Amino acid sequence: MREIGLNDIEDIALGATLLGAGGGGDPYIGKLTAMAAVRECGPVRLIGADELPDDAFVVPSASMGAPTILTEKGVGAHEFHRLFDMVGMFFNRPVYATMPAEAGGVNSMLPIACAARLGIPMVDADGMGRAFPELQMATFAIGGASASPMAFIDEKGNAGVLSTVTNKWTEDIARAATTTCGGTLTIALYCMDAPTVKAYGVHGIVTRSQKLGHAIRTAKEGAAAAGMTPEEYFLHFTGGFKLFKGKIADVLRETRGAFNFGRAVLEGIGEYRGSRAFVDFQNENLQCVVDGEVRATVPDLICLVDPETFIPVPTDALKYGKRVLAVGLTCFDMWRTPRGLDLVGPRYFGIDVDYVPVEELCGQKGE
Amino acid sequence: MREIGLNDIEDIALGATLLGAGGGGDPYIGKLTAMAAVRECGPVRLIGADELPDDAFVVPSASMGAPTILTEKGVGAHEFHRLFDMVGMFFNRPVYATMPAEAGGVNSMLPIACAARLGIPMVDADGMGRAFPELQMATFAIGGASASPMAFIDEKGNAGVLSTVTNKWTEDIARAATTTCGGTLTIALYCMDAPTVKAYGVHGIVTRSQKLGHAIRTAKEGAAAAGMTPEEYFLHFTGGFKLFKGKIADVLRETRGAFNFGRAVLEGIGEYRGSRAFVDFQNENLQCVVDGEVRATVPDLICLVDPETFIPVPTDALKYGKRVLAVGLTCFDMWRTPRGLDLVGPRYFGIDVDYVPVEELCGQKGE
Repeated sequence: MREIGLNDIEDIALGATLLGAGGGGDPYIGKLTAMAAVRECGPVRLIGADELPDDAFVVPSASMGAPTILTEKGVGAHEFHRLFDMVGMFFNRPVYATMPAEAGGVNSMLPIACAARLGIPMVDADGMGRAFPELQMATFAIGGASASPMAFIDEKGNAGVLSTVTNKWTEDIARAATTTCGGTLTIALYCMDAPTVKAYGVHGIVTRSQKLGHAIRTAKEGAAAAGMTPEEYFLHFTGGFKLFKGKIADVLRETRGAFNFGRAVLEGIGEYRGSRAFVDFQNENLQCVVDGEVRATVPDLICLVDPETFIPVPTDALKYGKRVLAVGLTCFDMWRTPRGLDLVGPRYFGIDVDYVPVEELCGQKGE
Repeated sequence: MREIGLNDIEDIALGATLLGAGGGGDPYIGKLTAMAAVRECGPVRLIGADELPDDAFVVPSASMGAPTILTEKGVGAHEFHRLFDMVGMFFNRPVYATMPAEAGGVNSMLPIACAARLGIPMVDADGMGRAFPELQMATFAIGGASASPMAFIDEKGNAGVLSTVTNKWTEDIARAATTTCGGTLTIALYCMDAPTVKAYGVHGIVTRSQKLGHAIRTAKEGAAAAGMTPEEYFLHFTGGFKLFKGKIADVLRETRGAFNFGRAVLEGIGEYRGSRAFVDFQNENLQCVVDGEVRATVPDLICLVDPETFIPVPTDALKYGKRVLAVGLTCFDMWRTPRGLDLVGPRYFGIDVDYVPVEELCGQKGE
């Protein structure tokens, strides 16, 4: 157990942007929401999944909606109370803790606000180890956990509980409600017992986010202290594989069914001069192809960062002329099982390739 | 209190088709559902609204969706149980009775099935006195009742409870869920106390439906016994105003946002030869215009019936060459108040005329 105070939030948000793999929503508004909650209600107790009593009932909290819309809206204080009241009514059990459903992007921040407002701990684990666009894409689902009964509320006060026959139906009905309510809902889903969190959660992901954020923020000093170039240092502390370095030559975008689809086309710079690459995305980056060869696909994380500062560049910020370093991070190992790949493999996203782990595509040492 | 058995259902359904004013959904599948429930579980106790104990908690049941899709689906036995369990969980009160939210169309039948399955009485009242396309259009709303918390379930088992800030938000979110779930949901809404039912319900509407159905079915004998022509007899027992008689020359249709929109163009026959009329509809008939003059608008009921058999012709059955008698029935008087007209007046449906009661437009005696 440790406490998350105001000073921790900045680094967690920065690390979560990297784990967002281009998506997950801009943590900026989420950060303000989390900071306001901690300032008002005090620091949040962060507990390891293994510290949960076995009979603890854990309710992950999140925001649902298109990232470009998320940035225009916030989450009010009373919403978490009503959300958890609805969950409590359905399960008739006291909630022991909340946790992120998704550690990447804005959903790293909402559970901090939720935990602070409700005075409950937050578990240092999530159900993705990154960000994904649909809510059936959770490690808990590999363990057979149900996304529903799921509660939702919008900023106007419209709320509901869904109980569906599959997690994909939860996604579909909640997505329709999201669109109807103006693009964003605050949700509580995958309500579960501690053993499921322990067996299927991505342990330590909040702490990992914070360490990633800290390392990005102090990359220059860190590199100097380690006797590395900043890029070497960045690849070292993220455990990332270098995929490409280039200048954005074109960005194609389409908002369809509440998702941001698109492709960024890159022209190589530095050692990649003369090469071309593209990165496809659906909220998050899905695949990176360099000179016609696949270098990384979902569920591995494809992160575009500024080549000097290593600040992650989300898909909504991609624009002509911007320089980016493309890095691949290995995903949580359960995503690489057949059940995991059914949920989040390349073919689910319409990319007709077999999944090959990024470390095999790039060689064990990256570059 | 009286009982509704198998023999009553046919006439209630036929009368409900007339009260559907062209919409409300084909009662045919609803009739089979109600009959199967009564056959299996026994007759339904029909109680007058005034017979309700003041502390009785009443939960109307209905089907939501586009009429053309409703005819392809049924409602299973267990759905009402889950639906009312969800309502019970939200309100933590035993349900005393169900009732129709909408007496016109298929929604005349579902509460019979619901009451039979759950072994509770059905109240002889509804919240429309006819059919309307959106769920905020209920007399209970004039009395300040809330459509939500509203429960829904689809035939696959997907279910939910909505609690919204306005009845229009209930409509919008439930409509999105309806579309996502394949076009039809079974719902429980306007859960309320007996005093609200007594003050704002349309009393005796089930009995009225049954009498209308019986009179239509026996029109020829009834007319002979009364010494009237069948048409005179039909206008007499419905209290209707003759608007037009004609042959359908054209039908324009559009399915948009889960509603059936359209216009039927009529060429006069009999005493209307040389005249032209049109009837606009959104699920239900909205206005009847004869030779450029408005003869009736919502919330009054505009019913097209076969000129020989007086069987109602729903909007989905309108087709070139069909002969119809257009009749206007006066609506429940609360619809004629300013609050009523805000909910269901012609302007709500995009028809830019002031509401004038059908008896004023047609003269007190119809012709």
